[in-house]
Order: sequence, then structure tokens, then C-alpha cells
Amino acid sequence: MNTTLFADRLDAAIARAGNPCLLGLDPHLELLPEEFALARDAAAPRAARARELERFCLELIELAAGRVPAVKPQSAFFEVFGADGALAWERVVRAARSAGLLVIGDVKRGDIASTAAAYASAYLDPLPGLERESACDAITLSPWLGRDTLEPFVAACRSTGGGLFVLVRTSNPGSAQFQRAGPPHASDLVADAVRAVGEELLGASGLSSIGAVTGATHATELAALRARMPRTPLLLPGYGAQGASARDVVPAFLPRGRGALVASSRGVAFAQRSKEHAGKPWKDAARDALSAMIADLRGALTAT
Amino acid sequence: MNTTLFADRLDAAIARAGNPCLLGLDPHLELLPEEFALARDAAAPRAARARELERFCLELIELAAGRVPAVKPQSAFFEVFGADGALAWERVVRAARSAGLLVIGDVKRGDIASTAAAYASAYLDPLPGLERESACDAITLSPWLGRDTLEPFVAACRSTGGGLFVLVRTSNPGSAQFQRAGPPHASDLVADAVRAVGEELLGASGLSSIGAVTGATHATELAALRARMPRTPLLLPGYGAQGASARDVVPAFLPRGRGALVASSRGVAFAQRSKEHAGKPWKDAARDALSAMIADLRGALTAT
Repeated sequence: MNTTLFADRLDAAIARAGNPCLLGLDPHLELLPEEFALARDAAAPRAARARELERFCLELIELAAGRVPAVKPQSAFFEVFGADGALAWERVVRAARSAGLLVIGDVKRGDIASTAAAYASAYLDPLPGLERESACDAITLSPWLGRDTLEPFVAACRSTGGGLFVLVRTSNPGSAQFQRAGPPHASDLVADAVRAVGEELLGASGLSSIGAVTGATHATELAALRARMPRTPLLLPGYGAQGASARDVVPAFLPRGRGALVASSRGVAFAQRSKEHAGKPWKDAARDALSAMIADLRGALTAT
Repeated sequence: MNTTLFADRLDAAIARAGNPCLLGLDPHLELLPEEFALARDAAAPRAARARELERFCLELIELAAGRVPAVKPQSAFFEVFGADGALAWERVVRAARSAGLLVIGDVKRGDIASTAAAYASAYLDPLPGLERESACDAITLSPWLGRDTLEPFVAACRSTGGGLFVLVRTSNPGSAQFQRAGPPHASDLVADAVRAVGEELLGASGLSSIGAVTGATHATELAALRARMPRTPLLLPGYGAQGASARDVVPAFLPRGRGALVASSRGVAFAQRSKEHAGKPWKDAARDALSAMIADLRGALTAT
């Protein structure tokens, strides 16, 4: 159990790093650098293939440690390898925490009642006798099933000091179809619920441990979402590869660059595939892309 | 790859069983019968604890084989035990398929683009070199992120013969909060999307491989949902423990008891805890509860 609320650990981590970058750990099989090609080898044992995902993520963690506040492993790419992938996931989460990084497990789970409680237990609150080190600091969560289905996750956050990022407005092109059903818009109803349940878990920083995912690609909506959820940590996907700029994300922040994380996954991890960084060894490309992202966001946040 | 579409395998399985019962495999730690108490023992190795979940589900599969068309393992309860739970999940899915049961993986995943494709690959379409036997026949899916995020899953169904059950209207008390945002209601927009993408995957039976979850607890909405999605297999949670009766689910069916599955999880698996079956050995209680459910549904469907 963390005696400090996720809200305050996040606030401190952003202040310490001096930037709000959230490095995605997305070991996308087809995009992995040549050095990890064994992961794509159908003839290799599944365990060996999963080990390559782990090795790639450990290298990214090494790049991120001491430079950014948090990392976001994406569960889907691990689940591809079944139980071997799950083992790699646990090792990656543990390694990131050992490196002093906050871990936001991008699992997008969501279910009802005792099933929701089981998911919360799986990712935030390991059972007695299980290793604590593989718990995430926070996880992403789908609200579609209703506010009552958020409650077991909020309860887990209360008992463990963990946090949530509820999917309010996602960054993908078709996200408005169901999220903007209404009025009242479904995403606004979710935002109000996130704010309300978050009031129960306010930290000394003034932030809540219950956060929201708000796509940076909806730049014109960000100020309204921030106003609707004034104490809610925001997780912003969509920077870089999906088209959002540093300037676009500024309205999501609280004063002094607080209260939000800007995620980049393939823009950093697979920078070698970009025109800008082509020809560099993959890790140099990723390091340079991460430095550029940090500088870009610092610049935009300082300018305001 | 299944050469027969999920739609047609499901239709045949319901006809063969002569009932639409979907037995949930929910190895809920706190509810497991005393015989599996090792699962709750904090001092036991995690692998041994996960083995108890597996053992419980294998017993339920034995009860279900030849009697019902399909089973629905719930991922959350396996994920509690991390990689060991994932291994148990794979073994349970394989055992159910070997027993001739269709397997609907209750994973409620959902994500964008290549991440969605990774989830589809994990549950419907194992990679080359991985064991085919642990793929599900169909999985449950959250639509919150938008119709574009259903597409990678539909593509996986096209290439593998698998199926989906998209969460349109869930059975929990708070499900209306976001699902009925509008008008137009979010759940109706999802239903229309499910129908539209399903048109691409119609089987010889006239049904689609793209199904929908529609809670049996919303009895008054079922006829309208069926009319909105005339060729969509419906998965109905909420029977029994959550309060819906056999008569409630009838409007969801197509003629001759086709086109829908009625799920029961704790009402059967944990029947020993009910007043009606108290005092019986757990498996006798579960067998009797399953028999009663089959008779109840057959009666209601024949009466119409």
C-alpha cells in the first residue's frame, strides 16, 4: 500500500522531472526494431518471443528513468503472447517502478460489481501473498458500463493509494460517435461522474487520484474539459504521431505545468522509423525524440 | 482458422443443445466452494492458487459439455493471478473447446487501431507458431471508443471465422447513465453500428458473427433492441441472480429459440450458496441449477 495518494505522487513526479511526458511502452510486434526481430519469428518459442517485448521495454525504461515522470505500458501487446506475455508485463511494471517511474497500466478494463473489483485487484491491489511490485500506480478504465462500475475501482484506489484515468474523450478519429451522443453528451456525463467520484480522493496537492483521458487531438474541447474537471489529472494521448502539437495541449494544464500528462508512444519508441531520425540506431533515435518532446512541451508550457 | 463463421457455429450449437444457456465460468475467489479454498490461501504459491481456478472451471466444463451450447470464461478472475492466471485461462479455453463447447471470452476489451488489432490477435487469432487451441470462438467488446475501433476486431473475425459480442446495453443498475445519454441514445447508436458492421459477416443461418450484449434486466427494451438488430446474436446477462426471468428474455429471441444466448454465472456455478440448493455438494447443486435453468428457458421459449 502506498501511503501517499496517487494524486500527490503524480504531482511530485511531474515537478521533479520538470516535464509532463508520459512515455508509452507499446511493444508493437510489427514495429519493433530489427534488434528484437526474434519476437516476430513464428518458429521461436512463445516465451522467447515475449522476452523480446520485455527487453525492448526495459531499454525504454532506461531511457525514461530520471527524465520523465511516468511510463504507460500497453497491455494489448503483451496479451498477444498469452501467459508468457503476462509474465513480461509483470517484469516490465516491476522494472519501471524500481527505476523510480510511475506506472500507468493502459489496460482499459471495465466491468460490473465483483468483476470490476477483481480487475482492480489484478492491477492495483495484489492479493495477500502476491508480489506487490507488479501493481500499477494507476490504470486506464472504460466508463461505458456506468458510474456504478467505477466504484469498485475507486474503492481499490482508496485502500491502496492507486489512481485511475477514466476514458472521457479518446484521441481516435471516430471517438465522437458514441462519446458525443446527446446532448447531454455522454462524454460530459462521464466527465461529471469522474469529477464527482474524484472528490473523495483529493490529495494535499489539490489534485484527485481519479483522472481522465482526454485526447489532445480535440484541442478545442480541452479548455472546457479542464473547466469541467478542475482537480482531475488529465492524460492526453494524441501528441505527435496522431497530430496534436505542444500548443494544443496547453489548455489542459493547471498553472506551472501541473495536472496533466502528455503521452507519446510510437513517436518516441519507434522514432527510428520517422524521416527525422532515420538512419540512427533505434535507441539513439528514441532518446533524441524524447529530448525533443520534452523541450517542445517545456517551451509551450513556459510560454503561457 | 474456422472455415464456418461463428454465426453458423453458434446457430448449430444452440439447435444441437436444444437450449440457449451460456454457462459463465467466473472463478470468483471469495465464492469458490470449500474444495477450492487453496485459491484463497495467501501462503500458497500463486501458481497453485491459479490451478484451483482452473480445476473449478474444468469441473464446470464437464457439467456443461453436451448440455449447453457455450461457456463464457470471465477474464478478470484469472487476471488476479497475473501470468499464472493467464496460463489457467488458456487451459480452460482449450479444455472447453476440446469438450465441444463454444467459448465466448468475456474480456470486454476495446482500444484504437493497431492496439485493437493486438487484442483481436490475442483472443481470436493467435500468431503463427502459437497454439490455436487457446483462441476463443468470440469475445465481448466495449464500443466506447467509437465504431472505428470495432473495425480491427471485425477484420479479425473475417479472417478467423471468430465472433464478437459488443456491449450495447449492460445488465447492471447504473448502465443507463452513459448508455442512454441522448437522444439519440448512445446505446442506439452502438446498436446501429453493430448491425451495420455485422452485415459484412452474415452466415448461411442468416445470423451475423457480430453480436451484441443486451442485459436481460431491461426486459422492456429487448423487443426494440431485437428489432434494431434483426440478424444480430444477442447475449443476455442478468438472468437469475440479477433478477431477470425466462419470460423476460423471450422477446430477444428469433423464432424457434434461435439467435440469443442467456448467461448465468453465479446462479449455476455457486448454486450451493442459494437457499434452494444449500446442503448439496457444490457440483450437485450446480448440476441441478443448470438443469432447472435449461428447463425454465425451454418452457418459456416453447410457450411463445
